[in-house]
Amino acid sequence: MPLYSITAEEGVLSPDTKAALAAEITMFHSEMAAVDKKFVKIFFSSVPKGDAYVAGEAAAAVSLTLLIRSGRTPDYKRNMLQQLWNILKRATNASDSEILLAIQEAPASNAMELGKIMPDL
Amino acid sequence: MPLYSITAEEGVLSPDTKAALAAEITMFHSEMAAVDKKFVKIFFSSVPKGDAYVAGEAAAAVSLTLLIRSGRTPDYKRNMLQQLWNILKRATNASDSEILLAIQEAPASNAMELGKIMPDL
Amino acid sequence: MPLYSITAEEGVLSPDTKAALAAEITMFHSEMAAVDKKFVKIFFSSVPKGDAYVAGEAAAAVSLTLLIRSGRTPDYKRNMLQQLWNILKRATNASDSEILLAIQEAPASNAMELGKIMPDL
Repeated sequence: MPLYSITAEEGVLSPDTKAALAAEITMFHSEMAAVDKKFVKIFFSSVPKGDAYVAGEAAAAVSLTLLIRSGRTPDYKRNMLQQLWNILKRATNASDSEILLAIQEAPASNAMELGKIMPDL
Repeated sequence: MPLYSITAEEGVLSPDTKAALAAEITMFHSEMAAVDKKFVKIFFSSVPKGDAYVAGEAAAAVSLTLLIRSGRTPDYKRNMLQQLWNILKRATNASDSEILLAIQEAPASNAMELGKIMPDL
Repeated sequence: MPLYSITAEEGVLSPDTKAALAAEITMFHSEMAAVDKKFVKIFFSSVPKGDAYVAGEAAAAVSLTLLIRSGRTPDYKRNMLQQLWNILKRATNASDSEILLAIQEAPASNAMELGKIMPDL
């Protein structure tokens, strides 16, 4: 972990934008969490127009969910959300009403990476 | 939040069905949770035939996962599941064995929407 | 539950590999968790080349996330991760750096299947 899942309507994120966004998020997360970049995994998925809804209406919505180890402080998570929001907003030009960020948490030892189960801290 | 993710095999949900289902779920959730509709975000994703499995066999499975703020009572969640089940069953005509609903929870302050981090209640 | 979500780059998992992998995981999970196979649901999703990133670079990453009922012991989860890792590595031939496994947990009563809300144990 972290595991980022970023979902947007087709066409919102060009291949170049995805590559730049992945690089920026990876650098940001690696520095903020003090983890090696190799732990940062990001998956983009796109949905056809008409498959994303806000307020019951089809919309060019963008969601970013982020699975991290549990135990981070509320201040840490708040800071992370705010910075990811800025990064995502710049990359997508989406309006505030179309973006959702959410952090999900699991014990570090619920994840296995690089052949090892992560230690709980 | 809420963030709904609804996954089904290609063809199970027509564009019209998705639009109607999104409208119905949004209205339902907004009323039950007493939140403005603008907070309700729904993403549909479809998988090709042969990419969904139940009991080890390819099946026209439908999953609905729902990320909400933690702190709701078991009765609230039970009621929500039951009503979503009815809504989804009517929309998909799926058999009971093909449907999975699951609520996931995160502190409200783990989410950022409309430019703001949600307050914990 | 369990609900498995396996994401890989297009082409990493052939249709035959997915079917075999779904059968193997279902058998494994059913035995280890002592639940009927009919509760095991698996969704594969594939992303185009260039939509998965490890360490900020496009990579043939594979993620397996698994939603189970909360309450399992750390030893149980550790054992499950290790065995799923072996299964997934054999099926994908991915390198250790490209695979992420993560267990997510929710109360059993947060899920509805086969028309029933699961009892908390």
